[in-house]
Amino acid sequence: MTSLWCERPVGIVGLGLIGGSLGLDLRARGTEVRALVHREATAARARERGLADAVSTEAEVLRECGLIVLALPLDRLLEPDAALRQALPAQAVVTDVGSVKQPVLERWQGWHPRFVASHPMAGTAQAGVEAGLEGLFAGRPWVATPAAGTDPEALTAVRQLAEAVGADWLTCDAAAHDQAVALISHMPVLVSAALLQTAELGGAAADAAALVRRLASSGFADTSRIGGGNPELGALMARCNRPAVLQALARYRHQLEALEALVQNEAWGSLQDALSHCQALRPEFL
Amino acid sequence: MTSLWCERPVGIVGLGLIGGSLGLDLRARGTEVRALVHREATAARARERGLADAVSTEAEVLRECGLIVLALPLDRLLEPDAALRQALPAQAVVTDVGSVKQPVLERWQGWHPRFVASHPMAGTAQAGVEAGLEGLFAGRPWVATPAAGTDPEALTAVRQLAEAVGADWLTCDAAAHDQAVALISHMPVLVSAALLQTAELGGAAADAAALVRRLASSGFADTSRIGGGNPELGALMARCNRPAVLQALARYRHQLEALEALVQNEAWGSLQDALSHCQALRPEFL
Repeated sequence: MTSLWCERPVGIVGLGLIGGSLGLDLRARGTEVRALVHREATAARARERGLADAVSTEAEVLRECGLIVLALPLDRLLEPDAALRQALPAQAVVTDVGSVKQPVLERWQGWHPRFVASHPMAGTAQAGVEAGLEGLFAGRPWVATPAAGTDPEALTAVRQLAEAVGADWLTCDAAAHDQAVALISHMPVLVSAALLQTAELGGAAADAAALVRRLASSGFADTSRIGGGNPELGALMARCNRPAVLQALARYRHQLEALEALVQNEAWGSLQDALSHCQALRPEFL
Repeated sequence: MTSLWCERPVGIVGLGLIGGSLGLDLRARGTEVRALVHREATAARARERGLADAVSTEAEVLRECGLIVLALPLDRLLEPDAALRQALPAQAVVTDVGSVKQPVLERWQGWHPRFVASHPMAGTAQAGVEAGLEGLFAGRPWVATPAAGTDPEALTAVRQLAEAVGADWLTCDAAAHDQAVALISHMPVLVSAALLQTAELGGAAADAAALVRRLASSGFADTSRIGGGNPELGALMARCNRPAVLQALARYRHQLEALEALVQNEAWGSLQDALSHCQALRPEFL
């Protein structure tokens, strides 16, 4: 019988937005947190902020942990340091927080016997050791994507972790997850970025560069928000979820071209019907 | 010498969001407002809400007005009732609030000697006689697009009106206005609507209809907001600003395809550079 995760320290690898927020929430409820970070300056600041009980740049800090959360950027998660992999105790439950699940699952289930692929769907525009904040996960989905070989007790432990910080637990297939987040998160970043580029270039071409900037209002601000977000993260999501992002983009292009054809053909009734459908549809996504 | 607009009653044709808000703001500063509406039920409710001092379904209510604001939807503005056109006193300054300016200017400058094409850039998601609210125009742009034949005194009167309700006055060429609003408002509605359609269809195709809805977060909510807005308005803007909207869509498609090519070609450095540019660009539009 395995110990529940909360009876032993929780390890967190990386104290950025997700790792730092998790550390704060777990400590607030009395769980001991031990963290591994890359740089000594980060460790010092993390200690000042109280993100974990112990913070080190040495992987042995994780030795006593019963559950370890890899709160690393996707690229470092997919190509981890050898020292990190070696330092993970075989009996510990290991999970990640990456926004793409298939490639993570494929690698890590071969690397660690008690790995659970998971993805807390929470975030702000901030990153780094200053970004972590309490309550980030409350009421937000925390998705796990168990595979045939996933240890059921390990899965339960990760669920307990997610629920301990107030997240809304669900599980689904890794491929379905990656397609879903491509549709509602990764592809929209590119859709939104192209809007900013178009407003810039179209404004310049119309000799209205200042005018487009002055007239842009809250609608444009909302539509362009994620396109103007963290560029490293946007590129990394496209890179790590490339097949699903390309599929979503192809589907998107098809839909937009259909709307364009309605305008081209002056099919105003059909255009209004399409927009009415969108108006009715949107609340399902809120 | 013409009287300033504020020395005589201001007429408002239509008491929806813009007309009603204008009525409230003008009355709050002591200006007498007389309004023409289409239906008796609207007139009764507008009187209850105090949107104007006098509200009628008879165009003669406008007879004494020194300045008349046509706060009508674009289609009714472009094809007005004959009775309305006949009722507008020749000496009154007449302006509109439409979000497209070239077709309005082309028609109305031939119809009325003191017409000024203008566009207060303010709005909420609401419409109708219940929508008007105080302070809607404060700090928002109010653009006029004078042409060679525009009466300078009439232009000044409209400027005084705009500034009286706290708007930020500017003038520009009608064609530049229409191209700018296509880029930052009309085309983005279609970009945002296509995103909703894609999430729906892509989710269904991936057998993840419930998942896409559950995982969609604030980023998706923001990006899809204007696509899920008023369908009549969205279709009307595309219809009345069709050439500029088509041009903006073509330009948008080109930009999105370029980003898609970067993903296709795994040009991650270039993708991150493009997103970094967008991140730096967006504050210019806020």
